[in-house]
Amino acid sequence: MPARTEIRVRYAETDKMGVVYHSNYFVWMEIGRTELFRKMGLPYKVIEEKGIIFPVVEAFCRYKKSALYDDEIVIETVLKHYSAAKVVLDYKIIRKKDEVLLAEGETVHGIVTTEGKPVSIKKLPWLQEKFDKIMEIRGN
Amino acid sequence: MPARTEIRVRYAETDKMGVVYHSNYFVWMEIGRTELFRKMGLPYKVIEEKGIIFPVVEAFCRYKKSALYDDEIVIETVLKHYSAAKVVLDYKIIRKKDEVLLAEGETVHGIVTTEGKPVSIKKLPWLQEKFDKIMEIRGN
Amino acid sequence: MPARTEIRVRYAETDKMGVVYHSNYFVWMEIGRTELFRKMGLPYKVIEEKGIIFPVVEAFCRYKKSALYDDEIVIETVLKHYSAAKVVLDYKIIRKKDEVLLAEGETVHGIVTTEGKPVSIKKLPWLQEKFDKIMEIRGN
Amino acid sequence: MPARTEIRVRYAETDKMGVVYHSNYFVWMEIGRTELFRKMGLPYKVIEEKGIIFPVVEAFCRYKKSALYDDEIVIETVLKHYSAAKVVLDYKIIRKKDEVLLAEGETVHGIVTTEGKPVSIKKLPWLQEKFDKIMEIRGN
Repeated sequence: MPARTEIRVRYAETDKMGVVYHSNYFVWMEIGRTELFRKMGLPYKVIEEKGIIFPVVEAFCRYKKSALYDDEIVIETVLKHYSAAKVVLDYKIIRKKDEVLLAEGETVHGIVTTEGKPVSIKKLPWLQEKFDKIMEIRGN
Repeated sequence: MPARTEIRVRYAETDKMGVVYHSNYFVWMEIGRTELFRKMGLPYKVIEEKGIIFPVVEAFCRYKKSALYDDEIVIETVLKHYSAAKVVLDYKIIRKKDEVLLAEGETVHGIVTTEGKPVSIKKLPWLQEKFDKIMEIRGN
Repeated sequence: MPARTEIRVRYAETDKMGVVYHSNYFVWMEIGRTELFRKMGLPYKVIEEKGIIFPVVEAFCRYKKSALYDDEIVIETVLKHYSAAKVVLDYKIIRKKDEVLLAEGETVHGIVTTEGKPVSIKKLPWLQEKFDKIMEIRGN
Repeated sequence: MPARTEIRVRYAETDKMGVVYHSNYFVWMEIGRTELFRKMGLPYKVIEEKGIIFPVVEAFCRYKKSALYDDEIVIETVLKHYSAAKVVLDYKIIRKKDEVLLAEGETVHGIVTTEGKPVSIKKLPWLQEKFDKIMEIRGN
């Protein structure tokens, strides 16, 4: 099951077209990631404290319908797959009141130390274990 | 030739990793688009006043190196191609001092009226003409 | 009683100092306003649909302690007072886990039509009534 | 003379009211500060590298007229005064085409080490000297 988290659209997130400005969906995906890691039992803050970060190396979003000011939004996040050096996450941005899919996205992350050195996930069993577990839960 | 425009990284654009937060690159691409349209002789503000908008339907970015606070950044934007219903733009985000490519991106835009109705570019000769001209200039 | 609403600090809201960038507190105050109006029985979206907006004419914030990534934050908002032409709101930004006051702020808003014309609240009894009620509730 | 710097309003900075969202003016003030420090011969990046930061302890803005998408904006920044523990900066946000004052603001900053300890400016002669010089230039 994906991690589900909810937010409400801020006035600050709208633009003069009257809808949410597109770059904010990437901020919402990050909120989804934060909740996925928390659900895994590994808050991202804790991962950072252990000296590991997941910088974004690719980010993609396909926009279907506009989110509006004060809309309640559900962010669904899944760990799609991972390799020694990369983590791929998928997202659905959903309007809560009618469960309409507003957008879907994907981010690809490196696995690096806080000093910026790439590190293989095989050397981070405490992390790999959690990744395997959340992927099993998801039914993969 | 691509439209080139320059910005300087704002403190507000950095995050606790010490580098520019990834969603800001999509804001920079929009600055690039704004300059491309101005260069075409059709400021985006004018296009909007004519009742046409280009909502983002897809956005992609590949991150190579981090931009840092106070870095001077060059944004290069080209009109890659267009069809009756869509416009595709490509971007390069470059660190000015050493011309290192920090990121590259692509956005796909619908062509719709300010009321949200899709409109074929064939019905907008004033726009198509400018698109053809900027693509020729680019050497395509 | 003030309107209380909760948010969680986003990674996007931090800066290279490792703390929340100061302008985000003004976004948080707006979230507080949105909840105050909802609590009043007059969602801000509905007020806008009735043709009335409250543009910010002054904004102030005093910062005491830094908010950090992933902190749970409580925003407390009160309607401090209003006159024919202005509304003054006060805010407290509180760290949830230990109820420490991180910042306090104030915003002053005009009362204008969506066309930008100032309008006296005396001509908007549906609004004034709600304002009086929320101030009474507050014990003023 | 104040430090003058220019920006162009980004689409991302507008909101559904069709004007620049108010919190962005605080980001613009920071751009003004960055230029003032550069003009002083002490880029803020260099000050940070020397282990000194100026966290915002108070921020104020009075909004007079709205900035619009694609407007060219001039930010004027002056060092108003400083004491052992604090620095006060004043800002004017001006529309370039007609020199209309859109907003004016003030920020108060602490003087602290990157570890967060307050430090008296008297112990930082390299900084005080620059502050005195820029205030003289200003005609104070």
